[in-house]
Formats: sequence, C-alpha cells, structure tokens
Amino acid sequence: MDPRIEEHAEIIVEHSTDVQPGDQVVVSGPPEARDLVAAVYGKLGEIGALPVQITQDPRAMREYMLAVDPDELDLPTHLQALIDETDVMIGIRASSNKNETSDVPPEKNSAMATLHKPISEAVMEKRWLGTQFPATGDAQKAEMSTPAYEEFVYSAVNKDWDEQRELQQQVVDRLEEADEVRIVSGETTDVTMSIAGNIVKNDYAEHNLPGGEVFTAPVPDSVEGEVLFDKPLMAQGREITGVRLVFEAGEVVEFEADKNEEVLGAVLQTDEGANRLGELGIGMNRDIDQFTYNMLFDEKMGDTVHMALGRAYEDTVGEGNERNDSAMHMDMIVDMSEDSSIEVDGEVIQRDGTFWFEDGFEG
Amino acid sequence: MDPRIEEHAEIIVEHSTDVQPGDQVVVSGPPEARDLVAAVYGKLGEIGALPVQITQDPRAMREYMLAVDPDELDLPTHLQALIDETDVMIGIRASSNKNETSDVPPEKNSAMATLHKPISEAVMEKRWLGTQFPATGDAQKAEMSTPAYEEFVYSAVNKDWDEQRELQQQVVDRLEEADEVRIVSGETTDVTMSIAGNIVKNDYAEHNLPGGEVFTAPVPDSVEGEVLFDKPLMAQGREITGVRLVFEAGEVVEFEADKNEEVLGAVLQTDEGANRLGELGIGMNRDIDQFTYNMLFDEKMGDTVHMALGRAYEDTVGEGNERNDSAMHMDMIVDMSEDSSIEVDGEVIQRDGTFWFEDGFEG
Repeated sequence: MDPRIEEHAEIIVEHSTDVQPGDQVVVSGPPEARDLVAAVYGKLGEIGALPVQITQDPRAMREYMLAVDPDELDLPTHLQALIDETDVMIGIRASSNKNETSDVPPEKNSAMATLHKPISEAVMEKRWLGTQFPATGDAQKAEMSTPAYEEFVYSAVNKDWDEQRELQQQVVDRLEEADEVRIVSGETTDVTMSIAGNIVKNDYAEHNLPGGEVFTAPVPDSVEGEVLFDKPLMAQGREITGVRLVFEAGEVVEFEADKNEEVLGAVLQTDEGANRLGELGIGMNRDIDQFTYNMLFDEKMGDTVHMALGRAYEDTVGEGNERNDSAMHMDMIVDMSEDSSIEVDGEVIQRDGTFWFEDGFEG
Repeated sequence: MDPRIEEHAEIIVEHSTDVQPGDQVVVSGPPEARDLVAAVYGKLGEIGALPVQITQDPRAMREYMLAVDPDELDLPTHLQALIDETDVMIGIRASSNKNETSDVPPEKNSAMATLHKPISEAVMEKRWLGTQFPATGDAQKAEMSTPAYEEFVYSAVNKDWDEQRELQQQVVDRLEEADEVRIVSGETTDVTMSIAGNIVKNDYAEHNLPGGEVFTAPVPDSVEGEVLFDKPLMAQGREITGVRLVFEAGEVVEFEADKNEEVLGAVLQTDEGANRLGELGIGMNRDIDQFTYNMLFDEKMGDTVHMALGRAYEDTVGEGNERNDSAMHMDMIVDMSEDSSIEVDGEVIQRDGTFWFEDGFEG
C-alpha cells in the first residue's frame, strides 16, 4: 500500500481521534475512498477497536433525494442509534464527480439537513474527524493532475501537528484577550464582530485533517458590515461564487452571488440561525499554498479568513454567551493575500496575508 | 440507468422486503454494487423509507483481520444498536476479486463469526434479503464475460415470483407429510435424515434473490450416511472442493476435501453446531441453467440438493423439535443431474434431476 496512505491512516487513528482498544468506531466514506478506508481498518485492527463503515454515496443519495418527498420523512432512528453507541466518527471525503448531486433541488437538501440535525449534533459530541482522500473529481476541481493533487493533499495532511499547534498558539493567545475583530479586504470587505467571552480554538488536526486554523464564534448579534467572499464554495453539489453579504446587528440583510444565488437563498432560509454567523476562522497551514476549491483545505491557507453561516461549535461559545444554532454550517472564504488586514481591538495582527510574527510583516 | 437494474431494485424493495413508508432500512453493499445501491435508494425514496448504507469492503476487512487479535475483541454494540432499530436489511453482494480475503487465517474468520453471532441472529428477525450484483469478479468466477454474466443474473432474478411459488408448492406439500428423506448420487452419496415435524419453506425470493428452492431443517441427530459435495464452495475467501462428510447420529465423524481441507476443518470447529446439519434444500429455479460457483445461484438449480453445516433457520424448526445452533451456516451442493435420486419415505420424487411432475421423469 502507498506509504503516504498508511501515514495518513496513522495520523487519523492515533493523533486526531486517539482510538483506544474496544472503541466503537464508525468510518464514513464513499467508494472512492476505498484505499484509505482499508488503511484505517488496518490501524483499527492493530489497536483492537471495533469498526463499522457507513457510506453516503452521492449517486445513491441523488436517486433518493430526487424521488423522496421530504415532508413525509422522519429521523432515521437506526442511524441515530448507531451514532449514540459510537465513540469515534471518522468521515472521509472523496469524489469522482463533485457535481454528482447538482440536480437535486436545494430546498430538499435544506429540509434533509434540518431532519438530520439531531444526528449531526450527536456526532459533534463524539471524537470526530473529517478528512480527504485525493480522488479524481477532487483533483479535477483543483485543476490538477491526480498525482500532483495527491502530493498536495499528503503534504498538507502528513505533517508534524505538534509544531503546527505551537505556531498557532501565538494567535490563540492574542485573540483570547480580544473583544473586537475587524476584517478588511480591498473596497469590498469591511466587517467587525465581537468575540468577547467566546473560546478560541487551536485546530491542530483534532477534527479536521488537514487542520491548521484558529477559530472561534462571533457573538451572534454583533456582526456589522459587508463581506465579499471572493473564493467559490460548494454547497449541495453546486458551486456558489462571488457571495456578498451585508450584516446588521448580526443578521444578513442583503445577499447576492454571481453564480447559484438561489442555492445561497435556500441555505439562508434553512432556519433562523442560518442567516447569522457561527464561526470566524483564520487559516494558518502554510503547506496549503494554493486554492483547490475545497473548503477543508482553502480555509486553512495562511492568507485567508473564513466565516461560516449557521451553527456555532459548542466548544467555541463561552459560558453565558449566546450560541448560534442551526441545521446548517456553511464556510465561506475571504482571500487576504492583498490589500487586506486583520485587526484585533484596533491593532493589526495580519497584513496582506502575513502575520505579525512572520517575516515581511509591516505593522 | 440500466432498466434491468431498475427492475432488480423494484423486486428487492416491493416483492422481497415489502418496504413501507417510514421503514428504517439498512442497505449493505460493497463499492462494486454502487449502481444497484443507487437504484434501491431511488425506490426507497419513492416509498418514503429511511436508508443507511453500510459497507463490508473485503479490502478493508482483510486489513483489519490481518492486524487484529480476535481474543481481545468484543461485540460491536454500535452495529448491534443499528440493527436493533432496523426494519429491513438488504444485503447486496458484488466482488471485483472473490479471493480478496484469502490470506486471512481461517480461525480468525471463525472467531469473528462467533463474536458477531448476536448480530447475525438479530438480522434474521427482520425483513432481510440477500442478493447479487453482477460485478467483474463474480463473472470471472463463473468463467463468463461480464455482459453474459449480467444476462445470467438478471434472467434468474427478474422473473415472475408468484409463478415460481406455485411451482414449488408441489414439493412443499409432498415434504410436509414426510418423515424421512434419502439423497442418493452415484457411489459417493447416500444419506438419510428425518425432517419429521419440521417446517418446509417455499423460497420465492423473500430472503434470497434469486430465490427458487424448497428447504427445511433435518432433525439434528437423525443424519446418517455419507455425502460427496461435488461442486466447489467459497468459504472465508477460499475455494473448497471435493468435500466428503460421513455422518453418524447427526455428527460429522469423518471429513476430507480435495482443496483447502484445513479451512473446512476450521469451519467444523467453530462451535458444537458447526459439525451437524442445519438445512436441507432442493433447488427448483430452472432459469439457473449452469453452475457459476456462487452458492446463492448454484443451490437454486433444479438439478441440485444442498445441505448446510451449522445454524438452522428458526422458522424451519417445528415446535418441540431441536434446533441446530451455530455461528456458522455453510451451504454445500450435491449435483443431482445424473445417476441420482431424492426419496421421500421410500418414494422417489426426483430422478436424475427431473421432478415427478416434470416431463422425462421415470418413477
């Protein structure tokens, strides 16, 4: 087996999810992820954990979603029972066609997300991880050959995560004392938000692999200003580009998109929390050196900031602070590489993609 | 989508498992079965059932089994919880390599089967089905091209099952009154067993698709004689050929095999029930006109009888009769096409593969 896949599996099982003998483990992955699933199973066997593989094949889900009337559905209690009894949830993404569900009506996807919310929430209470296997459709989306994309993925994933944690801790320490964060980029983005009292997390690949970001939750009603998310995102099997949002008292009061604006509209209408922010993240993984139109990687780039509409992670919300609740969590990216700054309580901590502790920073 | 796959999916969901709105459904299938899983998901969507796909990929299972120490394992309670909450279990087989687990030590497989016995038993209490998708490895095993094998599978599977049920009912009626069955073939097979008081089942594709057999349970201690199972069988990723068993008072007192005798030995040692018979079946599906070295099909051929070592199906054991219990259920076939007969209480009901109600029977 490809030794890079073996190393990836080892990081998943040992570093990220810390699997123990006897742990009940769910591995979720499509057919394209077969090689990594097999490597993970090998590691789980060594440890003596108990795996079950579940598959959400987009081809099957498309057939189901096209046929089903979501109003007549209930919660899949058998899936809920599985998750309730699970200690560790390992989710592996891999696509041979990133647009496989692109002809499912967006409002059906939103309805299903709402229906499955108790399950998504239960997963968050486990040791869970999301990671990527480099399949052909993902390489195509990144506009790369499959071997080149494999190299890209493994350089971002198979690294020294303790070193990365220490690097990021500098930003965590800075934000933990902060009240207000301001993100400015060109003429199109100028947004402020309070993070006062919320918890700043150091992502060193406990839940995302690759990890490499520092993130927290905005105070829901505090977000003011406008943002152009200038990198595309995939939602419900479709690409949305040029998302522009205007916030007042935390709510989206204006939205537009260059492409698939109606999908964005459906996302915003999922529920009340879907038109407020649930996350602010700052990318810090310098091994991710190009956009690949895959949020798991793009949002970790050192030259980016991302914000998510919808659900705030519970462990980012401070005691007594409001948590934005939603069935949705949709990340969107601002490119900070040029004419941009991150300010914390009036002080610039990153300018044009360079942090204050890095060479080339001009404060 | 291939209309034959659509029809297969429709028979699975409507005829075999009678899926209802709101049913909690598990679809179990490897990556090779992707097209059929997608078609089944479409039908489940139309009905408004709630599917989860689980995957037992032999490549992953091989890695796991090679690495694991089965003595340190417990029951996967999360899988058990999933099955407990499930109404319908649809198992789809498909292989790109029928020998994918052939280098896993047989005693490890036996240990795992024992560990998973409560789950296998729980599945049997649901509406469950096992069926086949025609993948490349299955075609290769059958020594056929993939398109020819597809035709073979769909002609056996996509048929009028009500008509088949009526055909088989003649044999059911005959066996239901019977005490003793005797199977004779050439010089190598002459075995008698009592089926007195046990229940004779008409398999018209409720649990196996293709269906097409009449089966019951022998009274465990009644089996006497010797049998040469002259068609190969696959156990634990290996082919066993030329299995010869000698029974005394129901127990296997001698065994041999031309190939992989040690795998047969491991199977027999699984537990106490593994060296007694749990099933006697008579094949009656005339659309299966050749051996394809796949038990699901071979055992349904009109010219065969099969016997299974191990677990008896609960619904074949009459009240007050003993049920053979085991973690194992391994079917083995006797070719009855030449120099053979099935006798019921001394009366021949099939000679040289032809039933008494068919043309060419000589009583």
